[in-house]
Amino acid sequence: MSKNSPSIRIADLGAHTGQSVEVQGWVTHVRSSGKIAFVVIRDGSGTAQAVLVRSEVEPEVWERFGSLTQETCIRLTAVVREDRRSPGGFELGASDLEILGPSPQDYPIQPKEHGVDFLLDHRHLWLRSARQRAIARVRHEIEQAIRDFFYERDFTLVDTPILTAAIGERSGLFATEYFDEGTAYLAQTGQLYGEAAAAALGRIYCFGPTFRAEKSKTRRHLSEFWMIEPEVAFNDSEDNMRLQEDFVSYIVARAVGRRRVELEELERDVTRLERVKTPFPRIDYGDAVKTLQAKGSNITWGDDLGAEDETLLVADYVTPIFVCNYPKEAKAFYMKENPADPRTVLCNDCLAPEGYGEIIGGSQREDDYDKLLARIHEENLPVEAYGWYLDLRKYGTFVHSGFGLGLERTVAWVCGLPHVRETIAFPRMMNRLRP
Amino acid sequence: MSKNSPSIRIADLGAHTGQSVEVQGWVTHVRSSGKIAFVVIRDGSGTAQAVLVRSEVEPEVWERFGSLTQETCIRLTAVVREDRRSPGGFELGASDLEILGPSPQDYPIQPKEHGVDFLLDHRHLWLRSARQRAIARVRHEIEQAIRDFFYERDFTLVDTPILTAAIGERSGLFATEYFDEGTAYLAQTGQLYGEAAAAALGRIYCFGPTFRAEKSKTRRHLSEFWMIEPEVAFNDSEDNMRLQEDFVSYIVARAVGRRRVELEELERDVTRLERVKTPFPRIDYGDAVKTLQAKGSNITWGDDLGAEDETLLVADYVTPIFVCNYPKEAKAFYMKENPADPRTVLCNDCLAPEGYGEIIGGSQREDDYDKLLARIHEENLPVEAYGWYLDLRKYGTFVHSGFGLGLERTVAWVCGLPHVRETIAFPRMMNRLRP
Repeated sequence: MSKNSPSIRIADLGAHTGQSVEVQGWVTHVRSSGKIAFVVIRDGSGTAQAVLVRSEVEPEVWERFGSLTQETCIRLTAVVREDRRSPGGFELGASDLEILGPSPQDYPIQPKEHGVDFLLDHRHLWLRSARQRAIARVRHEIEQAIRDFFYERDFTLVDTPILTAAIGERSGLFATEYFDEGTAYLAQTGQLYGEAAAAALGRIYCFGPTFRAEKSKTRRHLSEFWMIEPEVAFNDSEDNMRLQEDFVSYIVARAVGRRRVELEELERDVTRLERVKTPFPRIDYGDAVKTLQAKGSNITWGDDLGAEDETLLVADYVTPIFVCNYPKEAKAFYMKENPADPRTVLCNDCLAPEGYGEIIGGSQREDDYDKLLARIHEENLPVEAYGWYLDLRKYGTFVHSGFGLGLERTVAWVCGLPHVRETIAFPRMMNRLRP
Repeated sequence: MSKNSPSIRIADLGAHTGQSVEVQGWVTHVRSSGKIAFVVIRDGSGTAQAVLVRSEVEPEVWERFGSLTQETCIRLTAVVREDRRSPGGFELGASDLEILGPSPQDYPIQPKEHGVDFLLDHRHLWLRSARQRAIARVRHEIEQAIRDFFYERDFTLVDTPILTAAIGERSGLFATEYFDEGTAYLAQTGQLYGEAAAAALGRIYCFGPTFRAEKSKTRRHLSEFWMIEPEVAFNDSEDNMRLQEDFVSYIVARAVGRRRVELEELERDVTRLERVKTPFPRIDYGDAVKTLQAKGSNITWGDDLGAEDETLLVADYVTPIFVCNYPKEAKAFYMKENPADPRTVLCNDCLAPEGYGEIIGGSQREDDYDKLLARIHEENLPVEAYGWYLDLRKYGTFVHSGFGLGLERTVAWVCGLPHVRETIAFPRMMNRLRP
């Protein structure tokens, strides 16, 4: 063993051209002509091809090569050579090969088509595939972009609670016993807590997992998903939409700018993403209904937009669009009554193009104590649980707005995926709690 | 109303010296001589003092001043003046004052001592106090520092699931019904999932809420807390400790460097934090036991260290310390047997100075299939639930290590707080699920 060769990640090979190094990782492909053998090795940072020349290595090294299977964990000693034809631009001239962890021939995921249920059953191994690694990296880039966007703008991160007694929306709750305090529910939103924090810190956001125990099997729903929810004191509904379009275009530009290789791996048409520029078109709900009716939808004034309506509406645009000021009965109790049309509220959804639909719901919040209390009564919500939330309207009420962006839907859109299930490492759906 | 004055955040006043601006926020203090009045206003970005001269403002403005109470939400029109004596370095020469949201005299949190239970009952308002705002900002800085540390080092963020069927540690679980899939448990750790992801992505971390349904009432426990858990392929226990000390010292330096004002508000002795330099001392578990016995502890070989032991041990140091290679029975089943002493495992705790104790638990993971299976049997864990975890040792097993850092304990230490309950916006404890 050449103990003097430094252990190097494949991503860092470029700094070691001409040197002997050690590389550790997993075998993804092997082939041999009998005289020359090729091993493609993956270490998590990248993939590289190693070449073994039978006449130049010890016989036991050549023999070990013969025992390699997919996913065998190995350590190679090799000289780094520039090679423009190789993936990553380097080739490894191997002098030694050590087997660290063998892998039996029955590795479940073979280079062939598998059904999605089979793959999800083996999600812990499926994650190793090139496509899944690319999605994971794009997701990571988007998450860091989100953190950076808010950090640069002096927002304070506030981690709102998952275990809650009072809740924002009420159907589809996961419940758990909480010591002697009764039943706790898993949060569907951090917004109400975020509003309290906005009065203390001005601009805040929360970003954590949220839960919906809904029996829906669609390509856009998970029972556990991550949501980003900023809340800003003294922002009205217009300010709120400006923040949303700045935010969405920032995320998309960052993913395109820094994860082009991964988006190419996913065969994403990046030019579609490059068209995402501010401002996004604003469409009043009433106009949206008329447009949809003209396009053949059965929607009538008062209905929320369904997934098909969203697709139909956004088909005319290359950027996301805002649909504004929905009817009160279609939206949550906390949204502010629209002074210009009290049948509606000051809110917006943001719909992504290419059929992806709603990625954001946002609104100005009802800041009038009496109107909010009336809405809580109208919706038959337990007033006592909302006492602290009403306090925010009692002690120095303030104009404020915020929104929630669904991370998985956004990742699906940016990556061009047909279903959200691949956007998260271990998706949770109605029929899927394992692995 | 002077509609032409731009609306400015207090943090941005410096760019508007000599100009007329609007500032919106909440009243924290008022006083008046009858001819000159002072209003301290807070907008979340900072606080500033405004001065009203009776002879220079309209009578109704002076009258409105008289109605101000703590937490009244107001809009001031004022000229920004440099004033070195003022907090923030600026004073506002007010010409107009508009009341946006009145606040009744019964605002619960008065400038006097309140009991902690009372304050926690009013946590949604308590957040507005100077001390709580300072803690929130330090926490936010630490969280962003954590994101940046891993991003800069090419770790991929992997959001591990909260709803789980198989779990790492087994006592104190919150449970919920999960559709037709039986009982789901709220995750106590993301580590096992992180190990699967490390084989795909090399260096990963997860960072999310974790849950312990333990009936413990100590100053170091919450039932819901945030944990950071990196996992690195091909890192052994020594590499793991180097990563930990780099990580902890990075976080501390960042908080000290960028949140000095907030740490001063908290009266934190920053010189104690400035002493946190790498390397951190490594103490073998056996030596730690001997030292503790010499100091009068009742600990015997085989016991885990209690909170008092940790305080006693770390008292001799100004930096955090590592205690390494605990007895197998004191630690979790997944830790790798120590080849040099099979009674022990390759692991470490990281103890913070000044009595804060354990902030990190880390280990090299058992990568031998048979040894891991034996440990699962020994601990009477359900083997079928760990099938996918065993797969990681079956298909290309690999040396790997990781650790978990408790965010709230780290924030308590950096801020110098006696209890973790103030480190999170809405703490969840045995007797506290509200607000």
